[in-house]
Amino acid sequence: MARHWKAGKYLPILDWSSDYSREKFSSDAIAAVIVTIMLIPQSLAYALLAGLPAEVGLYASIAPLVFYAIFGTSRTLSVGPVAVVSLMTLTSVSLIAEPGTIGYLETAIALAFLSGLIMVVMGLLKMGFIANFLSHPVISGFITASGILIAFSQLKHILGIEISAHTIHEQVGELLSQLSNVNVPTATIGISSLIFLFWARRSLGKLLVSIHIEKKLAGSLVKAGPVVIVIISIIMTAAWALDQEGVKIVGAIPAGLPDITMPILDMEIFTKLFMAALLISLVGYVESVSVGQTLAAKRRQKIDPNQELVALGFSNIGSSISGGYPVTGGFSRSVVNFDAGAETPAAGAMTALGIALATLFLTPFLYYLPNATLAATIIVAVLSLVQFKPIIDTWKYSKGDFFTMLATIVLTLFEGVEIGIAAGVILSLAIFLKRTTNPHYAIVGQVGNTEHFRNVKRHVVRTIPEILSIRIDGSLYFANIRYLENCIAAHVADNKACKHVILQCSAVNFIDISALESLEMMNDRLNDSGIKLHLSEVKGPVEDRLQKSQFMDHLSGRVFLSQYDAFTTLSNEVSQGY
Amino acid sequence: MARHWKAGKYLPILDWSSDYSREKFSSDAIAAVIVTIMLIPQSLAYALLAGLPAEVGLYASIAPLVFYAIFGTSRTLSVGPVAVVSLMTLTSVSLIAEPGTIGYLETAIALAFLSGLIMVVMGLLKMGFIANFLSHPVISGFITASGILIAFSQLKHILGIEISAHTIHEQVGELLSQLSNVNVPTATIGISSLIFLFWARRSLGKLLVSIHIEKKLAGSLVKAGPVVIVIISIIMTAAWALDQEGVKIVGAIPAGLPDITMPILDMEIFTKLFMAALLISLVGYVESVSVGQTLAAKRRQKIDPNQELVALGFSNIGSSISGGYPVTGGFSRSVVNFDAGAETPAAGAMTALGIALATLFLTPFLYYLPNATLAATIIVAVLSLVQFKPIIDTWKYSKGDFFTMLATIVLTLFEGVEIGIAAGVILSLAIFLKRTTNPHYAIVGQVGNTEHFRNVKRHVVRTIPEILSIRIDGSLYFANIRYLENCIAAHVADNKACKHVILQCSAVNFIDISALESLEMMNDRLNDSGIKLHLSEVKGPVEDRLQKSQFMDHLSGRVFLSQYDAFTTLSNEVSQGY
Repeated sequence: MARHWKAGKYLPILDWSSDYSREKFSSDAIAAVIVTIMLIPQSLAYALLAGLPAEVGLYASIAPLVFYAIFGTSRTLSVGPVAVVSLMTLTSVSLIAEPGTIGYLETAIALAFLSGLIMVVMGLLKMGFIANFLSHPVISGFITASGILIAFSQLKHILGIEISAHTIHEQVGELLSQLSNVNVPTATIGISSLIFLFWARRSLGKLLVSIHIEKKLAGSLVKAGPVVIVIISIIMTAAWALDQEGVKIVGAIPAGLPDITMPILDMEIFTKLFMAALLISLVGYVESVSVGQTLAAKRRQKIDPNQELVALGFSNIGSSISGGYPVTGGFSRSVVNFDAGAETPAAGAMTALGIALATLFLTPFLYYLPNATLAATIIVAVLSLVQFKPIIDTWKYSKGDFFTMLATIVLTLFEGVEIGIAAGVILSLAIFLKRTTNPHYAIVGQVGNTEHFRNVKRHVVRTIPEILSIRIDGSLYFANIRYLENCIAAHVADNKACKHVILQCSAVNFIDISALESLEMMNDRLNDSGIKLHLSEVKGPVEDRLQKSQFMDHLSGRVFLSQYDAFTTLSNEVSQGY
Repeated sequence: MARHWKAGKYLPILDWSSDYSREKFSSDAIAAVIVTIMLIPQSLAYALLAGLPAEVGLYASIAPLVFYAIFGTSRTLSVGPVAVVSLMTLTSVSLIAEPGTIGYLETAIALAFLSGLIMVVMGLLKMGFIANFLSHPVISGFITASGILIAFSQLKHILGIEISAHTIHEQVGELLSQLSNVNVPTATIGISSLIFLFWARRSLGKLLVSIHIEKKLAGSLVKAGPVVIVIISIIMTAAWALDQEGVKIVGAIPAGLPDITMPILDMEIFTKLFMAALLISLVGYVESVSVGQTLAAKRRQKIDPNQELVALGFSNIGSSISGGYPVTGGFSRSVVNFDAGAETPAAGAMTALGIALATLFLTPFLYYLPNATLAATIIVAVLSLVQFKPIIDTWKYSKGDFFTMLATIVLTLFEGVEIGIAAGVILSLAIFLKRTTNPHYAIVGQVGNTEHFRNVKRHVVRTIPEILSIRIDGSLYFANIRYLENCIAAHVADNKACKHVILQCSAVNFIDISALESLEMMNDRLNDSGIKLHLSEVKGPVEDRLQKSQFMDHLSGRVFLSQYDAFTTLSNEVSQGY
């Protein structure tokens, strides 16, 4: 075990495979069957959303699951095509190639490879923290806007019309002008699929529970709702030859497993795709890790965020070399896997086997599957991403965060994913910096005869005019030190009796060189006007660093271990007339 | 007085003029004479550095001083042309017009106007804090690089050769290839001026003190050293008609005061100049405020940073409408003013009068002043800006800050001022963010039977396995919350007995919406695995805000006033088997 440990860090499969049992196998197998059934229509639908042939969705649901089983640290995460990443694939690849062409497919495959490469490199360099800069308002706003964009993009399939515009306002215009061209059979299938799916999501669960089906199983069956409507609409379309009436169908899917080939590794395409690949990596990683963490916590398991990057990276590279497009750990598929009882990533590997079998034998049966039905499954899935409550909650909690979210939504909708996310990240940073720019500080005094010092504004405390004690509630750095300098200078100027200034540094975690420089100048200036500067409660690492500078030699006063020490020592000295 | 107070905030002249006395007048007048003598060669030299006719330097030393006397809050700051701002003027205006043309002069005048406008607006909007984002390594690196650039740019005047290249590496090449064209009389004047000035700076002060001249006066006399060499070189050049030998001289300066005219207010030029004007405003403001603060502190006076912006803004607008170029509060001139005994801004107004008189009557005597002498005064002044000790100190104190400084120096030297400063600011921010990304936290336990809780790693403390107490030493926000989440999840997963997690929030100054969301999820996840989450020592403003969210309703545990409360209450409950 000890010998395995290090290898297990990079190949988590070694951790869980060593005590794999018959019981675990049967739990995993059951989960795999349920997830496979759910995934088949979902994979086809998301490929359609990404502007790709339907079978590419299936290909992207085989190799990635196997790679994740080897490298992933979550026991139950299910990797494959997801809505948001499919949309991002569509928007970025459309800029380079025309959907429907070979070039488009090759670019999407190259995008998966590049995105996988970025993830592996970031994981090995332990750069997972970069994803943290996508703040909650940015992710939430971006996902809401994506949900709206995706749902809207599917309306043309539901109604059987052609829309060629790219921006959402042009699309609305085109949709309205095309309303007279709606294909009635298509719209009938599309709208009834929508109604069935919404009903299933709202009420089927309750119905199943009321007929004494176990709650978790009922939940999984509801998630398989799309399979039912897929089967019904295939039968109806085939029986009435609706494809002759203008209903667009999936058509002939090449049977058989994908070929293993290297994607086109063209520096020019890589350069063009780099920003898109980076964003897909970050967004996909954030989505996947948050699902993985939620599920791991439920069973008191851990996931390793940087190893997750490596695992998702290899999953994407796997997707790419087997003809698939960018993938990540998806929320709904992972929850179904978890609820269906999956114990180890072997469930994922068995799901991959299931999808492979479907690819081999099931595709002829999907010939008559109407695009409108797939579009309906997408709309129902993504509309659950569009939530207004978080927007209202954010408004109540913090206007700055709300503004960031709103800007991300509006810019993602009207200017595109990249600008929306970039503006959101910049706004988040600006608001954070603004918050640290005016750090809280308090003039403190002694509480009764205790060793405690509290804010003079909130507590009845003892102070003496010769000593000004200031507690600083934050680290000192370039953007806030001048503010504090001005505050301290103003307090000193207002208090002509002042002879000692004590900075209580209990909440100071670092002092950068700019702040150090300002402290030196503050020390000199105070000294010029006959005031000594003292420090109290300086943390170990901060003091170590200060010792490397000349500040400690120049300091006019002393460094005290506690504020109590500082205050009592100095007030004794003052009363003795020093 | 009370009635004056508000007006005094915006017109500080009302504050000091009301009790202006005969004694103050005479102190101010003496300071004004000394500063005037020092300023005449300096103003001419900096105008030359900025690529402008010499008289523009004089014009920029009249109106700005009067405006600053009305609006400024420092009693002793002296406003006018300074080296760094002159260099920035040269680099930005050269991009738009050819030095020596009317267009160049008009653009420099427009730059002063725009820069003044930006300062006034920033001051009125209380946006002085923006200058804080120029961290110490950026300013220090930028000034060092500027010093090198300026000194180098003057070598052609010292040697009497022509250099037309813009980038410093091209200039070095051109200089070397032109060495054979050196004008010997010019080089003789230039090099002997340099030697005299360096000697004066090093040794004249000691010499004067040794012959019993008062130390402060000696210091001021040393600063007037350039006047001596100016007079000597004028006499020599005139006597031997060295201008016939190829020595470039200042030549005919139009006598008389500048006309008051509006600068050309052309939106196209303003758009082109905006970034340069913004940078000049920020750099000029930072330089001026730091000088002002140092001098104010020596006499326990205050300056108001936002009002300083307004004052510097009007000074620049004043410079512009009287034919001058961008100005700011200068270090050496202000120190001379202070040391010479100036008491109020009236000293500045009298200096303006002195310069005006010089402009009216002295200019004919400056006809034979060699450019080489002016260049020597610039080189000696700016080489004091080039200091290697701060670079070494920064290296010792913090590698990150050192790297920022080095990048700023190298990029300013080779890619220009704007790129150098921009890269420095971005690096400073990145390093700060990196520092806040992994905030310090500590597992804490009870010290003996006291109410104190300390880090288990550094102190002998009491803990019980059922309770995990974590003190978080920083505010919670989007870029650090996931790190903490992972740390807490890891601690919980490692400790199977854990039933309660207490977050001690004594150093948490704010929790943004991303952190709130993560806390909610952490609460849910811990709850799923049978662990309650508690908070202790939450600050008032943070708790107020949390009450606006649903977090408090969902919190599985409680909020305790103190960590001691939390630990004793929960350990009692645990021991009673709850």
